Amino acid sequence: MYTKQLLTKSDYQNFLSEFDTFLFDCDGVLWKGTKLLPNVPETLNFIRSKGKNIAFVTNNSSKPREEYQKKFINLGFKVELNEIFSSSYSAALYLKNIVKFPKEKKVYILGEEGVEKELDRQGIKYIGGTDPVERKDIKIEDFENLNLDPSVGAVLCGLDLHINYLKYSKAFNYLQNKNTLFLVTNSDSTYPTSGGLFPGAGSCSAPLSCASGREPIFLGKPNLEMLQAIESEFKFDKSKTCFIGDRIDTDILFAKNSGIKSCLVLTGISKEDDILKNTLDIIPDYYIKTLGDLLNANEL
Amino acid sequence: MYTKQLLTKSDYQNFLSEFDTFLFDCDGVLWKGTKLLPNVPETLNFIRSKGKNIAFVTNNSSKPREEYQKKFINLGFKVELNEIFSSSYSAALYLKNIVKFPKEKKVYILGEEGVEKELDRQGIKYIGGTDPVERKDIKIEDFENLNLDPSVGAVLCGLDLHINYLKYSKAFNYLQNKNTLFLVTNSDSTYPTSGGLFPGAGSCSAPLSCASGREPIFLGKPNLEMLQAIESEFKFDKSKTCFIGDRIDTDILFAKNSGIKSCLVLTGISKEDDILKNTLDIIPDYYIKTLGDLLNANEL
Repeated sequence: MYTKQLLTKSDYQNFLSEFDTFLFDCDGVLWKGTKLLPNVPETLNFIRSKGKNIAFVTNNSSKPREEYQKKFINLGFKVELNEIFSSSYSAALYLKNIVKFPKEKKVYILGEEGVEKELDRQGIKYIGGTDPVERKDIKIEDFENLNLDPSVGAVLCGLDLHINYLKYSKAFNYLQNKNTLFLVTNSDSTYPTSGGLFPGAGSCSAPLSCASGREPIFLGKPNLEMLQAIESEFKFDKSKTCFIGDRIDTDILFAKNSGIKSCLVLTGISKEDDILKNTLDIIPDYYIKTLGDLLNANEL
Repeated sequence: MYTKQLLTKSDYQNFLSEFDTFLFDCDGVLWKGTKLLPNVPETLNFIRSKGKNIAFVTNNSSKPREEYQKKFINLGFKVELNEIFSSSYSAALYLKNIVKFPKEKKVYILGEEGVEKELDRQGIKYIGGTDPVERKDIKIEDFENLNLDPSVGAVLCGLDLHINYLKYSKAFNYLQNKNTLFLVTNSDSTYPTSGGLFPGAGSCSAPLSCASGREPIFLGKPNLEMLQAIESEFKFDKSKTCFIGDRIDTDILFAKNSGIKSCLVLTGISKEDDILKNTLDIIPDYYIKTLGDLLNANEL
């Protein structure tokens, strides 16, 4: 395996000319938490000015994509909603475009508003989610009758800050029907916040896998289903596409799984040593210190 | 491997004389849900009249043992509290007798009253559990500061009908300290109720294993730690002890793991076919149609 560090003006120019589409991870590439990384808006505007397609790919399922769009605009670069792919959006696209989820069926959601909004937008019916009826302790009578809806055809679990035993019980009971699809927005076991690590969507869904003995389909990076969902809505030539991310175990693995090239930025989780130690099965095709370095490709 | 069906009066007599201690699973052996199985009180009283030691071993962690004791007495046989071993009792004994949990340290509980009562009885300090402060949604400020108690030295998770993201977040943060013990009352993925299957203690604890990447110590059947905990408080000769249960995958496996003999009753989960098909690695030493059949050993 072979990786190339981008270091010189001609490296940057050759890199940019090799591709016509760039997919970006957000946290660790564009910003770190609330702090923007150097020259990011300028670099994105520069890449776009070269006629490249751009899209942003995040495993976050709980925030509606509109919030990302606002954040981008506030940071100084204009992004269309359909250039942002979150794991809840890919879940909705997967249901609509890949499995052709029947119109009369409903999805039982464990998750936040972001998941509901994406299903709404694709015209997919759902129950659960942020419904206050679900955000209650289980009662004795629930053990006798969970009032399950026979039209539920899928369980979709994302990061849910309001998980409880009642929701797990309902979801588990839906999953006992082997025809019920079992989807999880993303497999991340942890959720990084400014206050440290918290349980991620993968951990939120773990009781359902454990109780049902079933393996879910994960819709986020590094799973191929994320790319299938993106491809079902966003046309691009895989051979001319590069994924730019900061994590080898999600972003770079996602690119490899998807059959597209990858570039690691060193402003986030994975470090140069992770590549150079050469103990990993996955290495990026390229790596670069910061995304902002690409601005040096500018002729002017 | 070899198993023997107990069928005749002399089978029953030989079986009873081989052992001086009998450990019993409860549900599926003594009763099914709320329905007592035939001749159970008479059989237990008969075995006791033969001078045998008796103890009851259940994976249920949420009910205090006093409730089991009351149930036994109402059914017509007197049982002492120290003849009942629940997985929360074994967790408390494990902490006190096996790991010698320091007096100044606290346990962070995810679980119900049954767990708290057992820790109280062994003089082990704890926080969490049924405390109303923990039974709330996580708030934005919690992400910045979970107010963790530095004296927490163990996380103990049982079946918790009030699990939520706040508790998972606290427990996960305690578990990021590798010195914090990680205990789970029992590994059962499901919890059988009269209304069907619900998520069990093993499923309740799954987000913690997933987020922390750590394997817990399980204190219930079929894990050896259950026997270690029982042995630390209840003296018996393992070579003259038989475990009587209805589930091959928990009860009979527990007996094998513990190095004691076992007898399967066919009034619960496992069926005669499960033994005779001989596709299992674990088979009981003996099996019998119902516990009540042992009454036929009576000379009178």
